[in-house]
Amino acid sequence: MKLAFLEARKGQNTWTNPRVGAVLVKNNQVLSQGHHETFGEAHAEVNALKKLNDITKARGATLYVTLEPCSHFGKTPPCVQKIVEMGIKKVVIGQVDPNPIVSGRGIKYLRDHDVIVENLEASTNLNTAYNFFYKNKRPLITVKYAMTLDGKINQDKKVRSLISNQKAYEDSQQLRSQNQVILIGENTLKIDNPRLTVRSQNLMFPPIRAVMVRDINIVDLNSHLFQSQEPIWFFSATKNQHKLPKNVQIFVGEWNPQKVIKLFAKKGLESVLIEGGSHLQADFVEQGLVDKVVVYLANKVFGRGLPAIWDKKIPSMQFSDLDVEKLDSNLKITTWRIG
Amino acid sequence: MKLAFLEARKGQNTWTNPRVGAVLVKNNQVLSQGHHETFGEAHAEVNALKKLNDITKARGATLYVTLEPCSHFGKTPPCVQKIVEMGIKKVVIGQVDPNPIVSGRGIKYLRDHDVIVENLEASTNLNTAYNFFYKNKRPLITVKYAMTLDGKINQDKKVRSLISNQKAYEDSQQLRSQNQVILIGENTLKIDNPRLTVRSQNLMFPPIRAVMVRDINIVDLNSHLFQSQEPIWFFSATKNQHKLPKNVQIFVGEWNPQKVIKLFAKKGLESVLIEGGSHLQADFVEQGLVDKVVVYLANKVFGRGLPAIWDKKIPSMQFSDLDVEKLDSNLKITTWRIG
Repeated sequence: MKLAFLEARKGQNTWTNPRVGAVLVKNNQVLSQGHHETFGEAHAEVNALKKLNDITKARGATLYVTLEPCSHFGKTPPCVQKIVEMGIKKVVIGQVDPNPIVSGRGIKYLRDHDVIVENLEASTNLNTAYNFFYKNKRPLITVKYAMTLDGKINQDKKVRSLISNQKAYEDSQQLRSQNQVILIGENTLKIDNPRLTVRSQNLMFPPIRAVMVRDINIVDLNSHLFQSQEPIWFFSATKNQHKLPKNVQIFVGEWNPQKVIKLFAKKGLESVLIEGGSHLQADFVEQGLVDKVVVYLANKVFGRGLPAIWDKKIPSMQFSDLDVEKLDSNLKITTWRIG
Repeated sequence: MKLAFLEARKGQNTWTNPRVGAVLVKNNQVLSQGHHETFGEAHAEVNALKKLNDITKARGATLYVTLEPCSHFGKTPPCVQKIVEMGIKKVVIGQVDPNPIVSGRGIKYLRDHDVIVENLEASTNLNTAYNFFYKNKRPLITVKYAMTLDGKINQDKKVRSLISNQKAYEDSQQLRSQNQVILIGENTLKIDNPRLTVRSQNLMFPPIRAVMVRDINIVDLNSHLFQSQEPIWFFSATKNQHKLPKNVQIFVGEWNPQKVIKLFAKKGLESVLIEGGSHLQADFVEQGLVDKVVVYLANKVFGRGLPAIWDKKIPSMQFSDLDVEKLDSNLKITTWRIG
């Protein structure tokens, strides 16, 4: 099973699909292994079976798979059918699939067809956002900011400030690649003028770059945001009157944190990374819409500047013990909301 | 020498004196060891020699002492004289005494009297404040605060907020015991109403509790500060008109950070711990009067509240890599100013 989990982690382009690994074992020997590689393409079980030189070998074998095999016709035919056809004797699964389209149906199908099923109910961080999404019916929201030792996220309200070191910057790129949406407010767009891209990796499904603005028509079209092809979503109270690039989508409405998150949920997006600024972060935290906080703490003192979360009354929340990682001179601090 | 450094650390009541350890060795055997125990009392070398059952054994021995032996008549007679009298052949010292009253004179005296002297120039954190004080002619200033993950040091401007956990609280008591002055501003006195005592230890020389106020006459005499006997110093612009307890001293003048630090320096106080609030900390940082920052970071988010250092233009400063220690759910983060 450990091997199956390692195999699962190889899947870098599963997008909103879970990362899954599968290992086929017979007489204490590994026959083959596979993982779900790319959103919309073959599942881990099928990839493992495909690698068998002699397909009849699967008869009587045990399949270790990190997630309950699917039972529905989605973008690919159901895996459980294939498993039964191949004559696999036993399936050991890491966890039940929380997606209601499967959720126990895969196990039931297998058992109904005389396949032995063992569920390890292993809790891992393999598909945290995926599991969260189906449990809570909304994406996992991470608030991330770089902060000085005196709690400031910028030095001057009008200019972008350099806070993090190179290693923290690289780590934050990694964090972006693990999220399906990156969300910022209009001040951050204007002042920081970010690209919001993942520059370290070539992703098949890069995160959607989302911006909440009051008026789409005052957005500077020369912003760095428009200089790359990854999707851009604007949440605006006004309709657009300008010609915008093809990768831009505009959602017009009276947007607030709940409504934006609801729309992401409806679109099946499982993870949102909020990257500033102080006011947007306060708006989300005020609504309790924060599940994880990642702070890159720098060995700097600014004195002047905006706080990480704007001065706003927020509900009482509990967070897990602070987890810390040294990134040269900086620290990466992570905590999860637990109540 | 390692043993001498360990011995030195036993000195808990040396106050503004350095902690010093001494080990007497002959024929590869430790004859005796001692440390400076209490401000104004016998030095480490003397304490080591006193422990010899036969004083003549010291003849021809080597003395390992963490600090250059003194050459002056202070509260005790000069150690170098004693060393020569005892017939000690060689002295290995950890570092030169930065106190100008000694500073090389001890070594010179010994060499002039045919004692071999070896200086290891070992840089340790044994007497950081002592060394800093003589190098910079002012006390070492540590700014310490407990902060939430969003950079707040309180939740409500009018009420004391609980930020740290028990372990961070205990650690901060330890930090107090390592400083000779604890300094706060009048808002912190009024709102937090702290005792500023070291409750975990029974110190012979507890830190002086210093408060900067505009008007001494508006201080609430029922404050917790007045409920214990450790010295209290007020820096006030006005003269006192009330009857105050005996442990209270008032310094009247137009005080600012530089003037207060200058007075501490004049009094021979080598270390100052600044414990709030946001404005006082900003005033000191603005003047570059900060050498070390200690932050107890809590797994809390407040939204509303004051920043650790009030919104003020401060000079550009460099700090060392962030040092971190886990204190259960909290973190202790330490950094030193390096430029």
